[in-house]
Amino acid sequence: MSVPKKLHVAFQGERGAYSEAAAVAFFGAGEVEPIPCTSFDDVFQGVQSYRWERGIVPIENSLAGSIHRNYDLLLRHDLQIVGEQYLRIVHNLLALPETRLEDIRRVYSHPQALAQCEDWLDEHLPGIERVATYDTAGSAKRLPEKGQKEAAAIASTQAARVYGLSLLAAGIEDDIENYTRFLILGRESVVPDDVAKTSIVFALKDAPGVLFKALSVFALRDIDLTKIESRPLKGKPWQYFFYLDFAGNMTEERCQNALRHLQEIASFLRVLGSYPQAKAGSRE
Amino acid sequence: MSVPKKLHVAFQGERGAYSEAAAVAFFGAGEVEPIPCTSFDDVFQGVQSYRWERGIVPIENSLAGSIHRNYDLLLRHDLQIVGEQYLRIVHNLLALPETRLEDIRRVYSHPQALAQCEDWLDEHLPGIERVATYDTAGSAKRLPEKGQKEAAAIASTQAARVYGLSLLAAGIEDDIENYTRFLILGRESVVPDDVAKTSIVFALKDAPGVLFKALSVFALRDIDLTKIESRPLKGKPWQYFFYLDFAGNMTEERCQNALRHLQEIASFLRVLGSYPQAKAGSRE
Repeated sequence: MSVPKKLHVAFQGERGAYSEAAAVAFFGAGEVEPIPCTSFDDVFQGVQSYRWERGIVPIENSLAGSIHRNYDLLLRHDLQIVGEQYLRIVHNLLALPETRLEDIRRVYSHPQALAQCEDWLDEHLPGIERVATYDTAGSAKRLPEKGQKEAAAIASTQAARVYGLSLLAAGIEDDIENYTRFLILGRESVVPDDVAKTSIVFALKDAPGVLFKALSVFALRDIDLTKIESRPLKGKPWQYFFYLDFAGNMTEERCQNALRHLQEIASFLRVLGSYPQAKAGSRE
Repeated sequence: MSVPKKLHVAFQGERGAYSEAAAVAFFGAGEVEPIPCTSFDDVFQGVQSYRWERGIVPIENSLAGSIHRNYDLLLRHDLQIVGEQYLRIVHNLLALPETRLEDIRRVYSHPQALAQCEDWLDEHLPGIERVATYDTAGSAKRLPEKGQKEAAAIASTQAARVYGLSLLAAGIEDDIENYTRFLILGRESVVPDDVAKTSIVFALKDAPGVLFKALSVFALRDIDLTKIESRPLKGKPWQYFFYLDFAGNMTEERCQNALRHLQEIASFLRVLGSYPQAKAGSRE
C-alpha cells in the first residue's frame, strides 16, 4: 500500500498563519504539506525554482485593501495563478494555558490584527501595552518559546492548536466583514472548465483616454471586470502597470478577442492565469 | 512696520522631513512656518479643527506607489485639496561631524529609504547593520540626541542642516527617478484660473460594466484622467471607493456635466478639490 504524496504548498509566515488555513481550505487537509517561508519573495522563488509545487499568497483584504508587494512579485516572476481562495479572518486572543485575562500585561500581534481588534482591546484590556510583531502566528509562537505568562497573542485558532495555547477569547475582531482573498501559484497554467476568472497585467501607450479604451475592449464584449489595481511603473514616473481581473476563460473566443484588441493599445500585456472562480467571501 | 504672518503648515514627521521640504517648495521659504506632527491623522485633524491653516501630505511616490492611508483620510475628513507639489527625493548619508565613513557600524532610516539606497549601501558599507526607524528625519535627529558617533542616517539635506550633521555622501539613492507627489490641504476650496486638476472620490452602484460607464463620462467629454486608485469600501467586501484625478476645473461646464452624468451611476460622489496643476516631477 503506497502512501499518497502530499502537495508541498509554500506560504509566508509561521505555522498557524492565515495563509496556511487558506491552503488547507483550498486543497483539503489531507492533501497538503504547508511549507512556512520567511518572505513573500521566498514563496514565489521557491515555486519558480521547482523546490515547491505550489505557493499561496494573500492579494487583498476586504478591510485593509490590496497587498501591493504581491502584485509587484507577480510581475517579477514567471508563475501562473492556478486558483483563488477566500478566507474569513477570525482573530482570537491566545495565551499559555495557565494565563488568565487579568494576568495579561502585553498583547502581541501584527499591526493590522491589533488595529482590527482595537475596540475589543479597549473594552476588555484597557491600557494594556500592544506590541507590533512581524506576523500573527509568530506572535503566538513566541509565548511558549519565551514562557511568557503575562502576555497574549492575537492569531488564528490553528495557531492555538500548533503552539498549545488556550483561547481566552474567540472572534474578537471589531468588523466581522473581514475576508482575505488568496492566490494559488503554480508553474503551469490550468484550463478551467467551470466558471472562470482571468488575471492580466498591462501597461498602456501614452495617449489621451487610453485607460478608457483599454476597459472598452471588455465592455464591448460584455466581459465583466471584477478588480482593477494600478502600480507604479519603475523608471517611468506617473506611468502605471494595471492589474485587472475579469470573469472569463482564456479558452473563450471573446476573451481572446478582447486581449488581441487590448494588445493594440498596450505597450505591455501578460496573462497571469485563468482559473476557477471561487465564491467571494461575504455575508451578502 | 508689521511683520507679515507666516502660514502654519502641518506635516507628518520631524523637522527636516521631505514633507517639510515640499511645503517650502510650494509656499516659499519666507512664507511658511512648518508644524511637525506625529501622524498623518494629526495633520488632517489639526487643519480641520482650525489649529493650523494648511496641511501637506505625500500621496504617491513614483517608485513605491500610493500612500493608501492618506487616501482613506481624505475621505474621512472634510478638507479641500488646494494644491499639489512634486519633489525629487534625494537621499543622503548623514553623520555627526567627527564621524568618518569607516567609523560607521549602523545605518538608520525609514525602511523605504534603506531599500531605495540598497545598492549604494552594499557597495560602500557592505555588511553594516541597517536599522529601520519611523521616519528619515527622525533617524537624523537621534544621532546628536544620543551622541552616536558610529552611526549614520539616511535623510534629506534639510535634516543635515536642522540637526548639525555632515553630509558623508550625497544623492545615494539607487534610482534617481524618485519623486513624491504631495497634496496641500485647506478648509476652503480654491478657484484655479490656470491649468487645473480636480480630484474626486466615488463609489458605484453594483451593475455590470459600471466602471467602464464611470470612465466614459470623462472620455465622452475629452476630459483626460491622470490617476485612478481603488480602496476597499469597509463593510461591503469587494466593493470599492475609486479616487480619480482629471485634468480640468470645476468651474468648466464640461466638468460639471461629467460629474452630473457620473452621479447617475454612482452611489456616492464627492469632489475633493480643484487646484492648479503642478509640473509633474520627471526627467522626461
